[in-house]
Amino acid sequence: MDDEIALSAFLDLFAGVAGKKILVHGGGKVATRLAKDLNVPQQLVDGRRITDAATLRIVTMVYAGLINKNIVAQLQSKGSDAIGLTGADGNAITAHKRKHAALDYGFAGDVDNINSKMISGLLEQGLDLVFAPITHDNKGQLLNTNADTIAQELARGLSKNYEVHLIYSFEKAGVLEDANDDNTVIKRIDPDTYQSLKEKQIIFAGMIPKLDNAFEAIRSGVSRVIIGKGEQLAELITGAAGTTITDAA
Amino acid sequence: MDDEIALSAFLDLFAGVAGKKILVHGGGKVATRLAKDLNVPQQLVDGRRITDAATLRIVTMVYAGLINKNIVAQLQSKGSDAIGLTGADGNAITAHKRKHAALDYGFAGDVDNINSKMISGLLEQGLDLVFAPITHDNKGQLLNTNADTIAQELARGLSKNYEVHLIYSFEKAGVLEDANDDNTVIKRIDPDTYQSLKEKQIIFAGMIPKLDNAFEAIRSGVSRVIIGKGEQLAELITGAAGTTITDAA
Repeated sequence: MDDEIALSAFLDLFAGVAGKKILVHGGGKVATRLAKDLNVPQQLVDGRRITDAATLRIVTMVYAGLINKNIVAQLQSKGSDAIGLTGADGNAITAHKRKHAALDYGFAGDVDNINSKMISGLLEQGLDLVFAPITHDNKGQLLNTNADTIAQELARGLSKNYEVHLIYSFEKAGVLEDANDDNTVIKRIDPDTYQSLKEKQIIFAGMIPKLDNAFEAIRSGVSRVIIGKGEQLAELITGAAGTTITDAA
Repeated sequence: MDDEIALSAFLDLFAGVAGKKILVHGGGKVATRLAKDLNVPQQLVDGRRITDAATLRIVTMVYAGLINKNIVAQLQSKGSDAIGLTGADGNAITAHKRKHAALDYGFAGDVDNINSKMISGLLEQGLDLVFAPITHDNKGQLLNTNADTIAQELARGLSKNYEVHLIYSFEKAGVLEDANDDNTVIKRIDPDTYQSLKEKQIIFAGMIPKLDNAFEAIRSGVSRVIIGKGEQLAELITGAAGTTITDAA
């Protein structure tokens, strides 16, 4: 999101993907920069942003405004009939303020429900959906919600009506045997190999929540989960690149 | 937009309006405050903001992010199934960068086209639309566009398929005989009375562009144009308050 050339190249690939599609984006680095410019101190715990009122204003401006609308405008110019959304729009995603015994995450939201009827309506109208990682509680309050979680919940919610492929795009070529070597991609992980990789401590700690989420998605009806580099999007979709997560033993 | 209590009361009224509906909002004061906090100097010419690249970022964040999504979340909590849009979303409104012989307005957009098919599709899905005053050029560039103009262009574009009532909400109770007295509302203006009011210099200069736009809308098929106070929205719709613009002599 903070590299314009890489983003434009990725959006070219996204526009070229056949079928109905949804993009979920982040924007944390841009939000952190704006917070610094506005002298709003930021606190991150395990990669999650503590979202006080001033920070919620910032992420709403950056995610739902600046980044979402620039992505939509670029996609429109690349032949993708994109529409930008938060969870508040059309009541797409409801969430509740995170409850945590020891820590107040502020206006951070955990997802309750996906409005798959409304979302399907937009997809059937021929629109490509672009989600900013902002939800709402249906009582007027916007909430900051993790983009990976939104992607997973959308995939689960839509898997009742569609064959859903969920693709996590990140900075590595897939799940790696050697975290520093993109040539060591593990092509396929099922529950047994996952267990064995964890026991051998081949999978580094940062990868485990992503993989736990991936298996949860598969168990809730998502057809395939693929993890890899955004710049290989076309190959991720065909299975020629990245790591495919599957429930089959 | 900068008074939370008044905004919430207005959104209650908007949520209560029967029929398909579209809200077009501004947010200039909030944008000006953010620009000040970010040390981005602002220049306004005849009420139009000179939109350099830094200012475009600011208005995109404030209009399409902060204000649009807070309105949508509030409307959702008030029973209006709202969805927020810019002109880029679903290619709703295309515009071109303003050409002006003497002055560079920067990324200010003049409207070319309304995508009434896509907009109708959303309305027919039961959604209430909330437009931020941002458009795009369909080549990847967002543009800052006057909210009154967007409202007028939407009303014109949709009048082919719907009976459209266009309501301009501002700080006065309507077009006034005495600009300082809300009890002097002119109930009805047709082209003849408009001419006569202008000749007698009863209509103050700031009102003339608004009224010219209103008559242009009527001539292009809009059924009624009403001008008045947002807090009287219900009465504006029935004609019990405000000024009604009509083409009938």
